[in-house]
Amino acid sequence: MTRKELIAQINKKKSFLCVGLDSDIRKIPKFLLDCENPILEFNKRIIDATKEYCVAYKPNIAFYESRGVQGWETLQATLDYIPKDIFTIADAKRGDIGNTANMYAKTFFETYNFDSVTIAPFMGEDSVAPFLSHAGKWGIVLGLTSNKGAFDFQFSELISGEKLFEKVLRTTATWGSNENLMFVVGATKAESLRGIRKIIPSHFLLVPGVGAQGGSLAEVCKYGLNRDCGLLINSSRGILYAGADESFAEASGDAAKTIQLEMAAILKNQIKN
Amino acid sequence: MTRKELIAQINKKKSFLCVGLDSDIRKIPKFLLDCENPILEFNKRIIDATKEYCVAYKPNIAFYESRGVQGWETLQATLDYIPKDIFTIADAKRGDIGNTANMYAKTFFETYNFDSVTIAPFMGEDSVAPFLSHAGKWGIVLGLTSNKGAFDFQFSELISGEKLFEKVLRTTATWGSNENLMFVVGATKAESLRGIRKIIPSHFLLVPGVGAQGGSLAEVCKYGLNRDCGLLINSSRGILYAGADESFAEASGDAAKTIQLEMAAILKNQIKN
Repeated sequence: MTRKELIAQINKKKSFLCVGLDSDIRKIPKFLLDCENPILEFNKRIIDATKEYCVAYKPNIAFYESRGVQGWETLQATLDYIPKDIFTIADAKRGDIGNTANMYAKTFFETYNFDSVTIAPFMGEDSVAPFLSHAGKWGIVLGLTSNKGAFDFQFSELISGEKLFEKVLRTTATWGSNENLMFVVGATKAESLRGIRKIIPSHFLLVPGVGAQGGSLAEVCKYGLNRDCGLLINSSRGILYAGADESFAEASGDAAKTIQLEMAAILKNQIKN
Repeated sequence: MTRKELIAQINKKKSFLCVGLDSDIRKIPKFLLDCENPILEFNKRIIDATKEYCVAYKPNIAFYESRGVQGWETLQATLDYIPKDIFTIADAKRGDIGNTANMYAKTFFETYNFDSVTIAPFMGEDSVAPFLSHAGKWGIVLGLTSNKGAFDFQFSELISGEKLFEKVLRTTATWGSNENLMFVVGATKAESLRGIRKIIPSHFLLVPGVGAQGGSLAEVCKYGLNRDCGLLINSSRGILYAGADESFAEASGDAAKTIQLEMAAILKNQIKN
């Protein structure tokens, strides 16, 4: 999916919500365990209930990979079920040397036909570049994450005066464009977005950490929105596990709709067209 | 596998060679393409030919993952074929927040029963810790990699006077012990090992980049060996693709044996017992 197509979807749906498919066999409603493939059934119902309110789905690859071959089959079937006008993100956080990174790009862009993959930047340009050379596909590089461990290295102060995550954003931005590169920026530090927007004003940011991890949508938008929206806000647990009984999908749809309505208001008020 | 068991294997085989199973359908001998599962057949013959000379196998997960469900089946069958007294490394370079990292640990330690997994450190302690709490299992954290992109961020100079990779080594070492934590340290910068050994004198180091990527075994050992050996030297392409015809596995065995003999001499001369 191109940047133009993504922006058109955001405007059409008045939403920049990404639903994270961190579908966990231990957390889905118990009655689904009688299905032939409980996770797939869960995902289908979640997709049916939320597709009107979101512009992206983000399967967390660990949750599929950990279930072996059946997990990968579930991932493929889930992708096949997602409407083609919705952006797909393989949350895989891959990163390896050139020929291996090429293999990972092949996995997610060709074998599974995702629109994008999340990437760890530690190994530098040759580990990121292979994700940036596929038409209509995106690399989404970890900039500043929303977990406690972000403070271990990402905030390291460099002699240049920058913090490490700032160098990562500034440097990585030169390897691609806002047409093939996005960044993960955690929402638990919304005020950081002000400085981040000075470094990468036009890129889309994938923002986890709203909801379960404590970030505020209004705060994130205050500092992070740009004139093209420029944000994909992810919610996983808050939507997936909004309900636990037979009407769980309705509860998920309601949770997604609540966020979408808030987003529609923000888009109306904050973006001048 | 425990540290004690690994050291016993090294002493018994007089080898600290790791064979990287970066098995690529485009590079294996053409006559294997007629087999039902060419990659599995290739791996089995490579394992038969090299198992006497190495103490570890390191499947590069990208090469399996990129082949979809069949790739994961091949990975499982390859693991089943590796003798139980040989250390296994899932070269996966995973790294994510706590609950997701737990899933990755489950994937490689439980679903596939690997002894160890390589991990990217960018997301900090909560992304590494879940790999360090499984008895007899190891996390192998990227310290200094051997690719060109290592210079983009890993050598960043911090106001503390350290380089980023030095901070990663020093900090990460406090999260585990030399019984559950190793580090990836690239061999193309053998002289860096002198300084690295001051930071982490007793940990095992997994060293890629000897051979195809240009590192020298003698140089790496000069700076990297400790009294328990403390090194696993990986070779992938130099062994896997040593031959291209029907006798390819013999050529791979010979290539592994050549390295093993060099290692035996180094162990005899450099480690005083």
